[in-house]
Amino acid sequence: MKLEVLLGENSYDIHIESGIRNRIFQMLEFDEKSDDKYVIFSDKNVYYHYKGLFDQIVKEANGRVFLYVSEAGEKSKHISAINKAYEFLVEKGINRKDTVIALGGGVVGDFAGFIASTYMRGIKFVQVPTTLLSQVDSSVGGKVAVNLDVGKNLVGSFYQPDIVLIDPEFLITLKDRYFMDGLAEVIKYGFIKEEKIIDILEKCEDRKDIMDNIQELIRISCEIKKDIVIEDEKESGIRAILNFGHTIAHSIEKLGNYSKYTHGEAVAIGMVKILEAGAKSGVTDVALISRARKLLESFALPVESEYTNEELYKNLLNDKKFEGQNIKLILVGKIGEAIIKKVNEKDLWEYLFD
Amino acid sequence: MKLEVLLGENSYDIHIESGIRNRIFQMLEFDEKSDDKYVIFSDKNVYYHYKGLFDQIVKEANGRVFLYVSEAGEKSKHISAINKAYEFLVEKGINRKDTVIALGGGVVGDFAGFIASTYMRGIKFVQVPTTLLSQVDSSVGGKVAVNLDVGKNLVGSFYQPDIVLIDPEFLITLKDRYFMDGLAEVIKYGFIKEEKIIDILEKCEDRKDIMDNIQELIRISCEIKKDIVIEDEKESGIRAILNFGHTIAHSIEKLGNYSKYTHGEAVAIGMVKILEAGAKSGVTDVALISRARKLLESFALPVESEYTNEELYKNLLNDKKFEGQNIKLILVGKIGEAIIKKVNEKDLWEYLFD
Repeated sequence: MKLEVLLGENSYDIHIESGIRNRIFQMLEFDEKSDDKYVIFSDKNVYYHYKGLFDQIVKEANGRVFLYVSEAGEKSKHISAINKAYEFLVEKGINRKDTVIALGGGVVGDFAGFIASTYMRGIKFVQVPTTLLSQVDSSVGGKVAVNLDVGKNLVGSFYQPDIVLIDPEFLITLKDRYFMDGLAEVIKYGFIKEEKIIDILEKCEDRKDIMDNIQELIRISCEIKKDIVIEDEKESGIRAILNFGHTIAHSIEKLGNYSKYTHGEAVAIGMVKILEAGAKSGVTDVALISRARKLLESFALPVESEYTNEELYKNLLNDKKFEGQNIKLILVGKIGEAIIKKVNEKDLWEYLFD
Repeated sequence: MKLEVLLGENSYDIHIESGIRNRIFQMLEFDEKSDDKYVIFSDKNVYYHYKGLFDQIVKEANGRVFLYVSEAGEKSKHISAINKAYEFLVEKGINRKDTVIALGGGVVGDFAGFIASTYMRGIKFVQVPTTLLSQVDSSVGGKVAVNLDVGKNLVGSFYQPDIVLIDPEFLITLKDRYFMDGLAEVIKYGFIKEEKIIDILEKCEDRKDIMDNIQELIRISCEIKKDIVIEDEKESGIRAILNFGHTIAHSIEKLGNYSKYTHGEAVAIGMVKILEAGAKSGVTDVALISRARKLLESFALPVESEYTNEELYKNLLNDKKFEGQNIKLILVGKIGEAIIKKVNEKDLWEYLFD
């Protein structure tokens, strides 16, 4: 199945298909006769689970593919890692006609994408996301970034991939916790845009049930994301609704030092919190809160954090310096109806926590 | 005088005006009531010559401007310098609405532009070029970059500024050698596109004569560059003609360790060399060679390097790995008539040097 992301000269296709990982070079129209080269960025986890796939790729590409395998985890996309990656590309003679392939989760995609976007002012870039989170979120939309000591994703680009290849079979090797990590973002799409997602998931009892519907869930999620990205590629307006649940989530992740909670777990907590705030101010349908709690809990996602409101608030204010006096909150009125609400710094405590 | 660079949502104006350096914030529509912030990137040379200007800017901006002053010279745009710059921006609370201003030559503009293009996925960027080279070339067109150990400008973006403010009075404090450095690029525009430049310069005896015509020379140069950039923003075709003289120049700069020859000096030598090669293959009007030599020499620009053809060839081949089997040479038939000629690696020696 194919989705088209129409962004003028930055347009690209998303292919969602079981087993497509075995046809990467076919999809990229690999030309035996050219001297085009490929660098695959990945991490040790992915490499461990898919060694056979890597072997096959290396064999197929006949000396024209190079592997750059990092340690798994957030640290591998720290800014201190970029120079080594650039030098690897230079050493392999990678030029403007060549291609960077991200084969991994969001961290791999963000890092490889940043390298691709800046090496020689930008070379071709392919996303092959291997986690549910990256399949429904980070591989689509062109946000790439690396981390500074002082904060995540503070350095990056908007750089659309040339093609996205999504193979749901990659999800088989995900641990439950990281499967549910991605599911929180799928549920987010349900709340901000499409009740059908919620309906499907409410009928699922476990991961197996979800996997029976995974292709459709990924398709709907990617469709929502691509439509929003087409409307607002560089996040000057409507794209902000994708941050539903994320304002508080960022604080939770940070307070947990990015290890206590996964991104999706933090988003689950953040969604419940902002639904509650929305209900209090009369915007959000109260029934949504219990529906969200029940659904998230049914998949072992947390709906409350261990942090006090004071801790969350303090952390939020600290982040907020990047936004000026107003902070943008994303509320949901009823399912599919997301609202961008600007709240002044001085009203933030009362609005969110009091 | 104003030129408009029409690039859709990336469009911007170039203002060329004596004394405009004293009205930077007026041009940027500085708003007393907003909390917009500005970071000015510059270097110690510029700061030394224009301390009064910096003092005035800091005073005007009333606590909302921050200075980031680097050592002068190419080293300051090495990739190892970026982290410190990003952290400075974070420390000053710079956010997506804020602005980076490059106030300096090409090195400052390249570095500040790269930081602006990647900090928070891109913030506003203003070019205030202070050298002739940056006024007629690097400040227009959106190429920004930093250096790796293994090569110059290997990491960068295409990132158009929001506005370019060119004050020819900045040139007064340039040493002769660096004035002529920029003049070589002005002469290049003459050869690839506009005889009028050559006509004007052939009537100039010295720097004073050139300064009497400088506003027009800058205007014509920027107009040529902007027209080419509009046609081919990301250098997939015609933009390559701006590299007239540059293929050999890059080798000369590299062999001289980027200190023996200025960029413009290397370009002067490179232009003569490629005119000679073009004449040999019957493309270039032979009379052009002596005209170019005479003009360049009249402004103390070199027309021959100390390197042997063998040295230049070896260096060129080494660079060439980034381009695949063919290398693009820019020839000039007669003045204003630039030709892109692809030469296969194996024919390069014969074409250029034999």
